[in-house]
Amino acid sequence: MMERLLLKNVLLDGRNRNILIEDKRFKDLDAPAEVADASYLDASGTAILPALYNTHTHAAMTLLRGYADDMPLQKWLNEYIWPFEDRLTPADILRGSEIAAKEMAASGTVFFNDMYFDIEQTIDVVNRSGMRAAIGITVMESHSKAVTEEKKEFVRHWQDPTGGRIRLVMAPHAIYTVGERKLRDCAVFARENGMMLHIHLAETESEKEDCLREHGTTPVRYLDRIGFLGPDVVAAHCVHLDDEEAAILAERGVTVSHCPCSNMKLGSGIFPYRRLMQAGCRITLGTDGASSGNNLDLREAMKFAALLAKVGGRTEQLPAEEVFRWASRAGAEAFGIDAGVIAEGRLADCLLIDLSDIRMQPCHNLVSNFVYAADSRCIRHVLCDGKIIL
Amino acid sequence: MMERLLLKNVLLDGRNRNILIEDKRFKDLDAPAEVADASYLDASGTAILPALYNTHTHAAMTLLRGYADDMPLQKWLNEYIWPFEDRLTPADILRGSEIAAKEMAASGTVFFNDMYFDIEQTIDVVNRSGMRAAIGITVMESHSKAVTEEKKEFVRHWQDPTGGRIRLVMAPHAIYTVGERKLRDCAVFARENGMMLHIHLAETESEKEDCLREHGTTPVRYLDRIGFLGPDVVAAHCVHLDDEEAAILAERGVTVSHCPCSNMKLGSGIFPYRRLMQAGCRITLGTDGASSGNNLDLREAMKFAALLAKVGGRTEQLPAEEVFRWASRAGAEAFGIDAGVIAEGRLADCLLIDLSDIRMQPCHNLVSNFVYAADSRCIRHVLCDGKIIL
Repeated sequence: MMERLLLKNVLLDGRNRNILIEDKRFKDLDAPAEVADASYLDASGTAILPALYNTHTHAAMTLLRGYADDMPLQKWLNEYIWPFEDRLTPADILRGSEIAAKEMAASGTVFFNDMYFDIEQTIDVVNRSGMRAAIGITVMESHSKAVTEEKKEFVRHWQDPTGGRIRLVMAPHAIYTVGERKLRDCAVFARENGMMLHIHLAETESEKEDCLREHGTTPVRYLDRIGFLGPDVVAAHCVHLDDEEAAILAERGVTVSHCPCSNMKLGSGIFPYRRLMQAGCRITLGTDGASSGNNLDLREAMKFAALLAKVGGRTEQLPAEEVFRWASRAGAEAFGIDAGVIAEGRLADCLLIDLSDIRMQPCHNLVSNFVYAADSRCIRHVLCDGKIIL
Repeated sequence: MMERLLLKNVLLDGRNRNILIEDKRFKDLDAPAEVADASYLDASGTAILPALYNTHTHAAMTLLRGYADDMPLQKWLNEYIWPFEDRLTPADILRGSEIAAKEMAASGTVFFNDMYFDIEQTIDVVNRSGMRAAIGITVMESHSKAVTEEKKEFVRHWQDPTGGRIRLVMAPHAIYTVGERKLRDCAVFARENGMMLHIHLAETESEKEDCLREHGTTPVRYLDRIGFLGPDVVAAHCVHLDDEEAAILAERGVTVSHCPCSNMKLGSGIFPYRRLMQAGCRITLGTDGASSGNNLDLREAMKFAALLAKVGGRTEQLPAEEVFRWASRAGAEAFGIDAGVIAEGRLADCLLIDLSDIRMQPCHNLVSNFVYAADSRCIRHVLCDGKIIL
């Protein structure tokens, strides 16, 4: 029998309704007050919004939250982050992923695109959490051929334990940690196996300078030259690039994952909003790991992105509706998840926003309040794949 | 009989203790588990931190939250904010102030320095809330002589209904809305009556340009020339100023109220952190009104301030401990409130942070977690003047 859930008395488009979810999808956005064989959720006093999709995370790095702050990037990595990571066990990864999943669900996120190690632990957590995830098979130049082959074997034999909420993606870390041959090999393997690709790109000025020195061109051009870029690529950061590179990203259909808190806190540079918008790039939002961010709250990242885009004086840049679309619909679309909007037939990923929360009052504009005024306390329930996960 | 409150089993400086509050003040930071004639609060699983002091607000403007976003400043003011404000009644101000007080208390703020109209409504709300406030007597050039005289009479006859939690301050709005004569008069009146002064200062580039045109000098120099500046002045924003002006502010002992979210959202400019720090200015934090911010969450403002200070690449600027001091101790000191630190003899304004909240885990560094990772959900209780207000 199909599972039915009736959200009773929820605000959508200015009117309170009953919304029926059937077999994971929105079945009727104007359902009667009673539906046979349905369970009910009293949603009185809430408004429904699409859920959030976090397109760049290192979930288990919640373990490093607050471990090292307010220092230059290289010191941070060399003296704190990498030595800490060398000591992590699979049990640690499990714990870090559990914290991450709980934190993301509590702040309205139903999906994350992750890049880390010991992925079986993270997969286990996602399975139990009811969330969705894209789990990266992290590839580094330093990994031996045997390790890489083992990872490929893992991919070939893996079966999604959730029946559709988890996928694997190939995640070569970055152009400065993976050589050209491995990058090409990753892209070929991903495409042979119908997998997406996830990579850090143009995050810092020094990445650009090193790339120029080593490859005679800039990071985006380099990846394009070796055939890496395509609509199956999610590129995190994309801070240091020129107009032509923005155009290349747009033409190849690459998804950009903008991580405003990480970029600001690590002093990586200011995201080139106008450049990427004018080129027509698909932009989504990420938090990066809690080691830099220092949380996984994509709602908060929306406010940071929107205010960062205005900091130079262009107050009309990145209005609330647009950054909310980045965090919801654009994120879902990038991963082919048939969700991100509240519409009949779509997968029922959504948030029930507590309109009685003091920060939602008054409510001249629901999306503005959610982006600029809310915090996680304003989220009463989170649904993913038609199920209540918070 | 003196009121006694015992906080049981609260984390302070790495150790769980019992903390005794007596007659509004911390009496014993290492009290026994049982104290005669004390009421108890089970604080197990929490850590104690100083509370937050918001040094620039327009509380009642919560009514305009989300009413107009993402547009240029002049359009925002002329077409939306001012016409809306013209229609506000005292009952509206009461409601807006109630929302503001609840929102601030829920996010850890025990004091706010306010500038608005119909202040009797706001005073009533503060009285009932248990919070502290400095309530501005707003002065505009457009007010008639009779209105100004009426306000002075109000000051002369006013008695604090709370026995010490509220004070009045003179609040000439800004140099572009109040003429020189009224500014001088405000300062004299304030000093005759032992009141502080609260003003918007050097918020935008156009304020600076207009000042140059009208007075032949820049905003800080202009106010200094007319004898306005002193240790009793709180100047909100202070974005557009040069090294010498920063030195003037420091020398006069002016308190700067930095409002990062408002400055970013209104595109006012980037707060000159290094300039003001190097000059030795006392810097505190404010949210500004919810019409610009769009909330009154000073904890969130700490994260925005800290990340904004690093955005140009200086990751070591404004570490978590420093911005937390701005929001707590420096704010209390600016208003002569004998609080802002957890120490015996000080007024008991404090927060009990829920260490079991997922965003506080793990807890390598309590202050970093509170500044960078937390949100209001992590605050279990707020105490002001020795009383639990949340």
